[in-house]
Amino acid sequence: VSAVEIVPIHGIPEVDAGDAVGALVCRAAGEGGLALGGEDVVVISQKIVSKAEGRVRSLSDVEPGDRARRLAAELGKDPRLVELILAESRSVVRAERGVLIVEASSGWICANAGIDASNVQGSESVTLLPADADASARRIRAEIRELTGAAPAVVVADSFGRPWRVGQADVAIGCAGLAPLDDWRGRADRSGRELAATEVAIADEIAAAADLARNKLSGTPAVIVRGLGHHISAEDGPGAAPLRRAEADDLFR
Amino acid sequence: VSAVEIVPIHGIPEVDAGDAVGALVCRAAGEGGLALGGEDVVVISQKIVSKAEGRVRSLSDVEPGDRARRLAAELGKDPRLVELILAESRSVVRAERGVLIVEASSGWICANAGIDASNVQGSESVTLLPADADASARRIRAEIRELTGAAPAVVVADSFGRPWRVGQADVAIGCAGLAPLDDWRGRADRSGRELAATEVAIADEIAAAADLARNKLSGTPAVIVRGLGHHISAEDGPGAAPLRRAEADDLFR
Repeated sequence: VSAVEIVPIHGIPEVDAGDAVGALVCRAAGEGGLALGGEDVVVISQKIVSKAEGRVRSLSDVEPGDRARRLAAELGKDPRLVELILAESRSVVRAERGVLIVEASSGWICANAGIDASNVQGSESVTLLPADADASARRIRAEIRELTGAAPAVVVADSFGRPWRVGQADVAIGCAGLAPLDDWRGRADRSGRELAATEVAIADEIAAAADLARNKLSGTPAVIVRGLGHHISAEDGPGAAPLRRAEADDLFR
Repeated sequence: VSAVEIVPIHGIPEVDAGDAVGALVCRAAGEGGLALGGEDVVVISQKIVSKAEGRVRSLSDVEPGDRARRLAAELGKDPRLVELILAESRSVVRAERGVLIVEASSGWICANAGIDASNVQGSESVTLLPADADASARRIRAEIRELTGAAPAVVVADSFGRPWRVGQADVAIGCAGLAPLDDWRGRADRSGRELAATEVAIADEIAAAADLARNKLSGTPAVIVRGLGHHISAEDGPGAAPLRRAEADDLFR
């Protein structure tokens, strides 16, 4: 492995429902003099993917039910937001101390079902997670391939909090053309001992790396990560789904 | 923010107790034609820091007690390893299905108290976490400053598993000269709305990014991350300690 480079793509405009994110990324990259190649990973923020897919709701259109009202009162949250969170969830993992952690419909476990109000136009608008961010990544990859002939891997990233650790870090909620896990189990280390429990969540590390080149205020929703061609495949592959720990293997829900 | 670059430092030799990690890093960087600057972050694997600090134990020297024997039988683990884990822990968070998650003496919550057998010489040798990886980072930073005149930030990184997500990702267990959290709370987004819950765990994202330029087999225990000078301070600062969530704020122990 030699150097890895993380390059922000500037100049992506405000995204509306129906926009082709892959085309917007290609245009902004081109205007910035950045060529997208088949050895690159393009990391795209959940926010613009959700907007392009029309996954935006206005709280003023939401009528909270009894369960949402009760939970909202307990947690000190807007009951309309809680109604949306419950509608976007399979189950509640924790509802305590102002925090609502759920298994979202998409299978990710996160706060508020990933529903987010920042950087959305309209004071009562929020974004929902893409319904299937692996499908989103495949579509964006196909759009880029169509326009440039090159098929970089695509990661859809979102900022998640973590148990035990303060702060948020970006993780992958969807990907295409990238093996999300790099499995070293069974291989020997330098002393000939088997490497224990070493399955690296490459897609999450790429999402985290990309976030370093982003500016939350100006909005930098797409970032290129270069130098990881060895993790990229021509096939779209399994997406980020293998990163979801099965309930039977999970000690924390 | 413009591009961020992640550059592996090759050629760091096997590390022994008493070695000055900062000096080894400077020498290897110099031989590789890499200058360390005050705008760089040097990310160093826990493994070599522990070795340099003599935090290596041989399982053959460990006499497991009753509690360790019982737990080891339940979990299918080596009772001597479990004895070491308990000795390096404040409390057990989960002991189920072959997994032992503890609050380590250093305050980090992780599997096996961070005790690791891979890439350690001697078939029964394991490394313990540094007793205080923030102090380790400060010392390494001072060694580099002494030798080069420049004071890059230093992060000590380790691979931790995560609840809910498969695979491991590198996180910071110690740092010096780097604000571990980038706090955007209270600042407004592009639409003038307050950014919600946006406190980015920069030190963890840097650790994850550095891992992308590493090779687990050949061993690449030090990596330079460039382009993040805006997160670096002349003072060593609070270290990685602010990343530890207080028990009172934690829903998962």
